[in-house]
Amino acid sequence: MTATAPRPTLEAVAARAGVSRATVSRVVNGGDGVREPLVERVRKAVEELGYVPNQAARSLVTRRHDAIAVVVAEPETRVFADPFFALQLRGISKELTAHDNQLVLLLTEGRDDHARVGRYLAGGHVDGALVFSLHLDDPLPELIQRAGVPTVFGGRPDWSGDRRGVVYVDSDNRGGARDAVRHLAGLGRTRIAHITGALDQTSAVDRLDGYRDVMVDADPRLIVEGDFTPAGGERAMRELLARCPDLDAVFAANDLSAAGALRVLREAGRRVPDDVAVVGFDDMLPVAEQTEPSLTTIRQDIEEMGRLMARLLLRGLERDAAELGIGAAPSSVVLPTTLVRRASA
Amino acid sequence: MTATAPRPTLEAVAARAGVSRATVSRVVNGGDGVREPLVERVRKAVEELGYVPNQAARSLVTRRHDAIAVVVAEPETRVFADPFFALQLRGISKELTAHDNQLVLLLTEGRDDHARVGRYLAGGHVDGALVFSLHLDDPLPELIQRAGVPTVFGGRPDWSGDRRGVVYVDSDNRGGARDAVRHLAGLGRTRIAHITGALDQTSAVDRLDGYRDVMVDADPRLIVEGDFTPAGGERAMRELLARCPDLDAVFAANDLSAAGALRVLREAGRRVPDDVAVVGFDDMLPVAEQTEPSLTTIRQDIEEMGRLMARLLLRGLERDAAELGIGAAPSSVVLPTTLVRRASA
Repeated sequence: MTATAPRPTLEAVAARAGVSRATVSRVVNGGDGVREPLVERVRKAVEELGYVPNQAARSLVTRRHDAIAVVVAEPETRVFADPFFALQLRGISKELTAHDNQLVLLLTEGRDDHARVGRYLAGGHVDGALVFSLHLDDPLPELIQRAGVPTVFGGRPDWSGDRRGVVYVDSDNRGGARDAVRHLAGLGRTRIAHITGALDQTSAVDRLDGYRDVMVDADPRLIVEGDFTPAGGERAMRELLARCPDLDAVFAANDLSAAGALRVLREAGRRVPDDVAVVGFDDMLPVAEQTEPSLTTIRQDIEEMGRLMARLLLRGLERDAAELGIGAAPSSVVLPTTLVRRASA
Repeated sequence: MTATAPRPTLEAVAARAGVSRATVSRVVNGGDGVREPLVERVRKAVEELGYVPNQAARSLVTRRHDAIAVVVAEPETRVFADPFFALQLRGISKELTAHDNQLVLLLTEGRDDHARVGRYLAGGHVDGALVFSLHLDDPLPELIQRAGVPTVFGGRPDWSGDRRGVVYVDSDNRGGARDAVRHLAGLGRTRIAHITGALDQTSAVDRLDGYRDVMVDADPRLIVEGDFTPAGGERAMRELLARCPDLDAVFAANDLSAAGALRVLREAGRRVPDDVAVVGFDDMLPVAEQTEPSLTTIRQDIEEMGRLMARLLLRGLERDAAELGIGAAPSSVVLPTTLVRRASA
């Protein structure tokens, strides 16, 4: 399900490695009965050509592991600190368990470890991969493509290469952001600021685009970069108050950074929503209900996104096995968002 | 490193399967070049006899995956809700990454999924396993033993079978509990209650034993079973106040349940520590610092426990590979605890 065309053939690999087609096939399908030096030559040719084996043929020959890797492209400390990931994993876990597939979570300390994750994925230990929180310039998509592992992404990947066959599940980040800013404008606010997410992620870029769709002539000083964390929200809010003391509304790219912004506004003696109205994004519970005041936000169903990712991947694997890849390939899904009105705007 | 004696031999497996010794060896070491029906017969014999291959010989023949499985014997929702697991995983992740080993976290929805975890471990996808939060009657230790995967346990497992070769990292739960209760007694308290942990875990049983070591003639009504969660601490505290309104101290089996107990004491109008002194266990931050009042507790270094588990496992794998299993096997480690005094006692 990763990008597959135009792709090198089995014959090209055989020619490069100087072995028969059958030998390449055996190596690609697990290496049974092939001497180690030949295995190495084939592997080298596969890597050099970026050969991706035909998943359909492969899954007919090899045993399934009934195991799906999940890769969160964040350090493990973030995975456990941000409830977003726990929610997405919950949806994934429920769906995989319902189909008796093992959830194999590959944790890392950071981007330097992604090459190792790629090796594990290429090692034939899982049937597919679910990958989320990708950042621009992350080598993971390319490593996954080379590993030849069917993959569904959480959030639209910024894939500089061939996008055909890339399957992802995302929320309507741009549309949701437009709704947030339109809601603030509908309250009569005119100096609407935006605390962005980490702009090396497509979700943050899309939300910024949505903000700009409505605030066509926005004062550029009203936009400050955050990073989806409470601390980033605090930093950005301080900078906004210093730059534009006359601001009367803030759209924060997620609820965690909105919570940070609310703390800074309170410290600064600004009443919310009277002086400054605030809207977040996610409807992350209990965060959005426990802020002071409670947070008006754009709801996305994070657990459902995880469930859908798993469902699309499993469906794709079944199709590959049953129909030799002829059926309709799973396509990407973009889920709608809704405004949830609480006290902050 | 799991229990290995008295164990069936390779010859016994060969005889049972009706194949040669060499065939058994090939199957056990990855199945290369053996026809599927024979592979199945050997696998069946291995399972029926509970044969555990010699890890030393095996790791010389097969390639290492440079991947270590981590199994937390709790539903994934608990793994993400209780900061204990995040801390232990942090220690494990740092140590594995320092040795370029991939952390493979196997998540489940509950105990019904442990057979599937056992299959994954037996499938040759990892070099070893770190297993924690075991409960009594959990089939995991037996499944792991059958899988023949070198394992280090977090917390002493309640292993009803042969314990030789079982390696674990634990805290001195019993000694720490004694320190907690002696501290309360030293404050002049005489009606010291205990909220236990989940008593199907050895850590909870050991802490209860430590309580009893000091409170030799304790009123049995002063002991109420909790489950290591804040909600369990609240329930237990309510029951204690109903049963023994004259209690003047509480030792809770962990900080999360102590936090729950503190909430109930406040609701009931009992001043802490004046009316009721409270001691927890873990020194889980920020929980222990943020309770009202801040929590006196028994500190165990949870992150260090995780690091040590990983270190012992990796050292064992190296030893197996380098010295054919002749060197000193890693032995279990029990870490000391210390009393951390804050405001609650």
